[in-house]
Amino acid sequence: MADTGKKNVLVIGGGAVGAIAALNLEIGGLATVTVVLRSNFKAVSEAGYSIESCDHGTFQGWKPSHVRNKVPDITRETLPPYDYVVLTTKNIPDIPPTISSLISPALPTENTHTTLVLIQNGLNIEKPILQSHPHTPVISGVSLIGSAETDPGTIIQDDKDRLFIGAFRNPHIPFDLESSKAREFVKIYSAGGKTDCAYSENVLYDRWRKLVYNACLNPICAITGLDTGRIRLAGGGIEGLVRPAMKEIVEAAAKKGVLLGEEVVGFMIEVDPLEIYLAPSMLADVRKGNFIEFENLLGEPLREGKAAGVPMPTLEVLYNICKTIQWRTKEARGLVEIPPKRNLGTQ
Amino acid sequence: MADTGKKNVLVIGGGAVGAIAALNLEIGGLATVTVVLRSNFKAVSEAGYSIESCDHGTFQGWKPSHVRNKVPDITRETLPPYDYVVLTTKNIPDIPPTISSLISPALPTENTHTTLVLIQNGLNIEKPILQSHPHTPVISGVSLIGSAETDPGTIIQDDKDRLFIGAFRNPHIPFDLESSKAREFVKIYSAGGKTDCAYSENVLYDRWRKLVYNACLNPICAITGLDTGRIRLAGGGIEGLVRPAMKEIVEAAAKKGVLLGEEVVGFMIEVDPLEIYLAPSMLADVRKGNFIEFENLLGEPLREGKAAGVPMPTLEVLYNICKTIQWRTKEARGLVEIPPKRNLGTQ
Repeated sequence: MADTGKKNVLVIGGGAVGAIAALNLEIGGLATVTVVLRSNFKAVSEAGYSIESCDHGTFQGWKPSHVRNKVPDITRETLPPYDYVVLTTKNIPDIPPTISSLISPALPTENTHTTLVLIQNGLNIEKPILQSHPHTPVISGVSLIGSAETDPGTIIQDDKDRLFIGAFRNPHIPFDLESSKAREFVKIYSAGGKTDCAYSENVLYDRWRKLVYNACLNPICAITGLDTGRIRLAGGGIEGLVRPAMKEIVEAAAKKGVLLGEEVVGFMIEVDPLEIYLAPSMLADVRKGNFIEFENLLGEPLREGKAAGVPMPTLEVLYNICKTIQWRTKEARGLVEIPPKRNLGTQ
Repeated sequence: MADTGKKNVLVIGGGAVGAIAALNLEIGGLATVTVVLRSNFKAVSEAGYSIESCDHGTFQGWKPSHVRNKVPDITRETLPPYDYVVLTTKNIPDIPPTISSLISPALPTENTHTTLVLIQNGLNIEKPILQSHPHTPVISGVSLIGSAETDPGTIIQDDKDRLFIGAFRNPHIPFDLESSKAREFVKIYSAGGKTDCAYSENVLYDRWRKLVYNACLNPICAITGLDTGRIRLAGGGIEGLVRPAMKEIVEAAAKKGVLLGEEVVGFMIEVDPLEIYLAPSMLADVRKGNFIEFENLLGEPLREGKAAGVPMPTLEVLYNICKTIQWRTKEARGLVEIPPKRNLGTQ
């Protein structure tokens, strides 16, 4: 790869979020992007992406600089280290492989050069990585994009790409270094001029705020089978489930020093216009038979809130229901074995 | 109808429970049975029932003395009053018609002759009838039968017909009258010699005890999509959901003077053998797209427990989820109207 002065960026996960990130980074002109694809590798490597983006316009057959079907092993391939590894996959710690093992081939163990950017939802997602890669700067990306992959390689982005970037605290690395990496990433992500990418001092605030939606409305929709419009129309949905759950998150956040304000509850209940009947990610995943990201989105804030002494009865029930839904998906995929059925015949 | 000395019994609802009740009553020889059918009327009136019963054996083309496709209007048809009207339909007070309006044509308003037997689950099911038909003796039937209608008119009974019969308390009628009607019904129901039909002094005890299963395991299976075997295998199912819910019911019952004993929880968790993977009624109903009986099975004990000061956080969440599931079924059946979908196109 010629030295172009551009940053060398590896995007792991080229779905709805990753494809727009890759496109935006390349349009900005400050990055050369390699995208690692899995389910849509064949479609994209053969015909490129088909993208309709409210930020960037329409693209037919667009390809990032490089596509790969697995995470490159920089040691074995003797590749120069990436400047940024951007993770845009789902984060499902209860289902292998772990994020740490997924990214390992692309990160030298004693690395401080490569910065890892986690554009993923939930709480404490950096913790396993601080353990497995203690010297890697890890950056938090909280994305509010509205984007979907309707077919392999076909991306519809219908809500603006807003991204909050900040540094997770890593005790092994000076905060200045982390912070400057985060600011640099904001610069290269903002270079195209079409996104709202901002540096954020308060990563925890960004994450807890998004959890008001993601720990509550998201699993409630997945459990009830109702989208964010219908849950507002069905009796019991908002007042019986969503609002009590959101209040528990606001209280847990407050106990952790993150003051969101009561009004965030009303805001998040109505953040999706009713009439678009939007299926949040967990509901979409349940419908597709995919695993759900409930541990980081719901389990972690529940555990933190309970440990801080906040009563979280609603989230507790939602969490345990999510656990059974995850088990159901495991069974459907042949990942759990159950005793054979015994027929009770008539006697 | 000739006077045979037999009791004249109307069974409303000829499904899995009603068909076996009708068969058993006719086999006993002390009753002439008319069965009111709805969805399976055509099948049964043309070809009779096909029944495989662990209590009674195998029957092909069996018909009760009379079948009808609606509740007889005894005034308009100038029929003699029935001795017993036995209700074996589901009881879903949130979906019309009400039970009171369903049975009205078969009961003279000033009736004290006809006794109503409710072989239905849940709490407070007699209350609307004590209002609409204050002079009708109303008998409680708590059935523990295992029976299913696999096709219209095809009944498989694979677990013994056990029935607890007792009198609901009606302030307008002497208890002796109610009690003697209940005991008489036990006699005619037991005449065939194959069932465990017993008179029970303590109707509330029978009902609360069955609620330990029906207010907890039943809706939890419906919500999670897991049968009673799988819910025991899925992490979080029993310890996170079923056991806490059952404990809330036991506590509520105790506050209402019904002492079930802690051991009922363990008993009900394992009452269905794991390996038969039994789908309780609400799960079966959700799978068939039917309405669920959640108001009497879950809503009433929840309201009674809360009014008595028992904290019921688990049942509260389960109840509100059931409410949204019922709404989903209403939408599927065109019973609710929602604003049209607005497409968010790319800009």
